[in-house]
Amino acid sequence: MNKVIRVMKTHRSIRNFTEKQVDEEVITIILNAARQASTSNFIQAYSIIRVNDPASRKKIATLAGNQTWVVECPLFFVFCADLKRSELACKMQNRQMLTGYTEQFIIATVDVALVAQNTMLAAESLGLGGVFIGGIRNDPVQLCEILDIPEQVYPVFGLCLGYPSDVPEVKPRLPLEVIVKEEKYSFDDLASIKAYDQTCNKYYRERSDASREDNWTKQIARMTVEPMRPHMKDFIRSKGFDLQ
Amino acid sequence: MNKVIRVMKTHRSIRNFTEKQVDEEVITIILNAARQASTSNFIQAYSIIRVNDPASRKKIATLAGNQTWVVECPLFFVFCADLKRSELACKMQNRQMLTGYTEQFIIATVDVALVAQNTMLAAESLGLGGVFIGGIRNDPVQLCEILDIPEQVYPVFGLCLGYPSDVPEVKPRLPLEVIVKEEKYSFDDLASIKAYDQTCNKYYRERSDASREDNWTKQIARMTVEPMRPHMKDFIRSKGFDLQ
Repeated sequence: MNKVIRVMKTHRSIRNFTEKQVDEEVITIILNAARQASTSNFIQAYSIIRVNDPASRKKIATLAGNQTWVVECPLFFVFCADLKRSELACKMQNRQMLTGYTEQFIIATVDVALVAQNTMLAAESLGLGGVFIGGIRNDPVQLCEILDIPEQVYPVFGLCLGYPSDVPEVKPRLPLEVIVKEEKYSFDDLASIKAYDQTCNKYYRERSDASREDNWTKQIARMTVEPMRPHMKDFIRSKGFDLQ
Repeated sequence: MNKVIRVMKTHRSIRNFTEKQVDEEVITIILNAARQASTSNFIQAYSIIRVNDPASRKKIATLAGNQTWVVECPLFFVFCADLKRSELACKMQNRQMLTGYTEQFIIATVDVALVAQNTMLAAESLGLGGVFIGGIRNDPVQLCEILDIPEQVYPVFGLCLGYPSDVPEVKPRLPLEVIVKEEKYSFDDLASIKAYDQTCNKYYRERSDASREDNWTKQIARMTVEPMRPHMKDFIRSKGFDLQ
């Protein structure tokens, strides 16, 4: 098993970090590797905001649902889908960018995710660990105020990084035969999902931290209790992503 | 430089492949590593369709803008954002999934991109190369017909993989000081973008294959000539992603 495969297979979210700071040199290595990710039409429609300021971190931790690791982690990034730079490129060529297409929203969202996954893996390969913070979308308007995020840019998720102070078990993912379809899309086999529920139940019961009775379908079903961040529609449009 | 960093830094899109097929064992290693990617709320909102059938490949290559490598590559995947499985999980728990939120669209699109980037890197670490095919979004309705893709699922991009028959130069990306912002979002420095245009101009002029006069801002500005896949709005909604 090569190191790339090993790093992927041992991925787990890390929320507890040692006091050890991350050297600037290490941060540069990580981000220089990450930015070589694939990008649709070479557009590179993303920006990364590095937030050190404790006051900003505290506000972000709170709005993300009291995720204290946002304050405590040595390194915190906010990954943004960014078409502002494309707008500038167009201006530099005396063109006006066409805006507001659903397609652009997809391109920018995918671009930033590709770079973020590289960032996570590059960091993990150097002994760091981390966790993505989708919770920043709880209150993206406030986040944009804190970070001066303009139109044509939207914050997609945060990333906490640092040296792990504990190493949780790897969480079992949906099995290959469920996620990979042959030749055409096919509906999931119920037996496979039930077996996966068993696997997840065992994982939740036996894990060293926060053991509980749970499984995958229960967890997904709990997400239906309330609308999922319904403010995102208006927020995304307010940033100039009209989803036309 | 460890292998993870090295694989990222030497990424380039590969469109020409040798005849060598990819062993099933290698494919399994790649996908088993890839599926350990981070996922929002553990939802794992994606599926991967592996397309071998030459007739399907040919149709997809054509609709993607005559991308012949879709036919020629040993291995071709279509990465889909997939909420169908969440719907099933809810049903198994006697719940009805709430659908149509912009937030769900983001979650599923990010999830699939994270797994896809893992797939690319895992493949590259084993000597393969590949290229993402956003061109499948040229005619997503036809693609869904070819691949029986139902509602609550949308195809985001394809991925061609195989053993490279040539190794193009690495394409220079936007420099760190442009993509990384400190503490708050800041507008790009014009001088940095101009310098990057020079870097790209040199790259396009000197590269071994398809040398041309070009730069980054010119390339981005050309994307303004026509609306960007304006059909995506209706298509996405037709798949049950209402972007509410």
